[in-house]
Amino acid sequence: MKVIVLGGDGFCGWPTSIHLSHLGHEVTIADNLSRRNIDNELGVNSLTPITPIQTRIAAWKEISGRQIGFRFLDVARDYDGLLQLLKDQEPDALVHFAKLPSAPYSMKSGRHKRYTVDNNLNATHNLLCAVVESGLDVHVVHLGSMGVYGYGGTGVKIPEGYLSVRASDGQGGWVEREILHPTNPGSIYHLTKTHDQLFFAYYNKNDGLRITDLHQGIVWGTNIPETLRDERLINRFDYDGDYGTVLNRLLMQAAVGHPLTVYGTGGQTRAFIHIQDTVRCIALALNNPPANGDRVSIFNQMTETHRIRDLAKMVAELTGAQITHLPNPRIEAEENELFAENKHLLALGLEPIRLSTALMQEVTQIALRYRARCDVSKIPATSRWRQDNHAQSRGVEASQGLVSGGKRPV
Amino acid sequence: MKVIVLGGDGFCGWPTSIHLSHLGHEVTIADNLSRRNIDNELGVNSLTPITPIQTRIAAWKEISGRQIGFRFLDVARDYDGLLQLLKDQEPDALVHFAKLPSAPYSMKSGRHKRYTVDNNLNATHNLLCAVVESGLDVHVVHLGSMGVYGYGGTGVKIPEGYLSVRASDGQGGWVEREILHPTNPGSIYHLTKTHDQLFFAYYNKNDGLRITDLHQGIVWGTNIPETLRDERLINRFDYDGDYGTVLNRLLMQAAVGHPLTVYGTGGQTRAFIHIQDTVRCIALALNNPPANGDRVSIFNQMTETHRIRDLAKMVAELTGAQITHLPNPRIEAEENELFAENKHLLALGLEPIRLSTALMQEVTQIALRYRARCDVSKIPATSRWRQDNHAQSRGVEASQGLVSGGKRPV
Repeated sequence: MKVIVLGGDGFCGWPTSIHLSHLGHEVTIADNLSRRNIDNELGVNSLTPITPIQTRIAAWKEISGRQIGFRFLDVARDYDGLLQLLKDQEPDALVHFAKLPSAPYSMKSGRHKRYTVDNNLNATHNLLCAVVESGLDVHVVHLGSMGVYGYGGTGVKIPEGYLSVRASDGQGGWVEREILHPTNPGSIYHLTKTHDQLFFAYYNKNDGLRITDLHQGIVWGTNIPETLRDERLINRFDYDGDYGTVLNRLLMQAAVGHPLTVYGTGGQTRAFIHIQDTVRCIALALNNPPANGDRVSIFNQMTETHRIRDLAKMVAELTGAQITHLPNPRIEAEENELFAENKHLLALGLEPIRLSTALMQEVTQIALRYRARCDVSKIPATSRWRQDNHAQSRGVEASQGLVSGGKRPV
Repeated sequence: MKVIVLGGDGFCGWPTSIHLSHLGHEVTIADNLSRRNIDNELGVNSLTPITPIQTRIAAWKEISGRQIGFRFLDVARDYDGLLQLLKDQEPDALVHFAKLPSAPYSMKSGRHKRYTVDNNLNATHNLLCAVVESGLDVHVVHLGSMGVYGYGGTGVKIPEGYLSVRASDGQGGWVEREILHPTNPGSIYHLTKTHDQLFFAYYNKNDGLRITDLHQGIVWGTNIPETLRDERLINRFDYDGDYGTVLNRLLMQAAVGHPLTVYGTGGQTRAFIHIQDTVRCIALALNNPPANGDRVSIFNQMTETHRIRDLAKMVAELTGAQITHLPNPRIEAEENELFAENKHLLALGLEPIRLSTALMQEVTQIALRYRARCDVSKIPATSRWRQDNHAQSRGVEASQGLVSGGKRPV
């Protein structure tokens, strides 16, 4: 099918684009290259030597014989360009990665918060508005985040998007309903994903748009078989305090002899998925769109959950690295459980890559191989979640999402 | 107390500002005058002869001896100006009306949808971000909308913001929680109010901001005692298809001999409040802020509910006008019930003005008095909620908010 990948030059976007091309889809990437520009702002580089998007596409053509299109486009700012792209391509589907994707970056300062809100919300809304205005029947596949549910320890096995409740009818009775799972985002970045859900529900209801929202866990790993075919196709690997995801950071730290940084007790439980499974999930979602009249399909795109300290132990055992505990900059529970459903993508045929089997490959193929490119000064996390950081929580967590307890209003 | 009123030149903002000044608060209005500019875009005028903001403020000074400050400011675009205003004023409270406030306007075209999203979401976020960055302890009072709950006939008496539920724990059991009421907005404008709720919950949790969100019904009426003290202080009255609220439109139509326009069966039930009660509610909210550590206070700011056809009958009986039924441009249920709590503001001392007693005053003081200023060509509603409007609903309404029934996903 014909697919446009918005944000197709990024960490998830590039491997998705090349994988979809490999599967025979006709792929066009639209990207403003903001991820590379943010590298410039932060003074960091991907550990892996990524090539320019033009080089990537030319190399893929050379290796595979397949053409990937590219359009330089700012989805949040250039609505007319986006609409024109839709009219030119008449795609069957749009995959939407065109977002600021980092929680720490979104919390660096007021300017970063405002950029994240402005960019991410206008990007999603422009896209939905353009699909309606184009008159095309396009399946929109969006990369959401498990972070919309929050990590508060709700006592609920997180369903895939929709939660069954009995709601008080205000008159002594209860009615049974299925609702969007209440949200409890932990950063401005995650907050924009909760806004996205409301955009999708509305455009689905009002305009009948067909939408799949994939709430992804934390991605680990770097390459997929297609990006391994030539070093010019290599995917990015971030290890810095803003963009490095936890497992990649730990692997990098081990490779350069830096102590493994664990924030707080490391008792935070998170959901994970390998980048190879990410791209497979996107392909599965594209092949299984909701029908006209269906509500938004919401899948939890994660394959395992782990506590951060257990991950650190695992990496320490593989590599002999030491572990160090640092104050946690995030406003979150010290320890949390996380149980989540992930039936839908498994039912569609996903066969997950397990951390226990694939982790060593990352150590040798990426972290050790490219460790000379590491700038260790970029390892520390610098974002502060609140101006008076490390002050006591003001006690309002308890009123968010599905978290229990908390004060009641007047 | 010191109060900044963002959007203090608009239909709710102006009477609020003058009322707060009358009560002895030190008021500064910040406004980009977008409401007047939209009059220019649409080629309409307030039925009442409103004067420029500068004239209003000077007249109020002359009449009352009280000074209201004014700063020309685009809250969504001029973050630095907003932050500077906070630093200059060090207010105790901010009242936030700086929004595109019309559902039909927000649905006129893709451009209008995008303006509404961009303006309303950045305005709210800039404000919250600026309060944090200023380091001030400011109570934020926001005008929300009853429309966030939707009008789907949920079988639930709508609580004030928070709904008691028993949620499935995914393992055969149920846990009791109180959650933000699920949303079901009927327009892009209302959608932005549902986004606002998530902004508030997040900034309350992460930064401890003290916030009151007032979910207001449809406002009717024009003046308050303060705006009646001099004609230069008069409030605006909109009757056009985009900005005219339903009751004001019916009154105007009766005054100029136009048939009363009822969309569909007129079986839609809506919540109402008189503009005099609006300003009283804002004053009550200012005097009763949440404490540090409290969650967001959410009050339903409405005093009565009516079916549209019953309102039309009431106006017809008062005036002798005829009623006409037109196709409904909105995507909504033909008929709906609406039961909502409004205990909080009554408990704080609100004594509602009843439609049955105050309606005739509007007919004579406003509609008949100024009917010569009416441009009848502006009465028809022109917004279309969907490109293929009047097509059958695609059947996804059932999955939204608390509405029952509906298809289940794969």
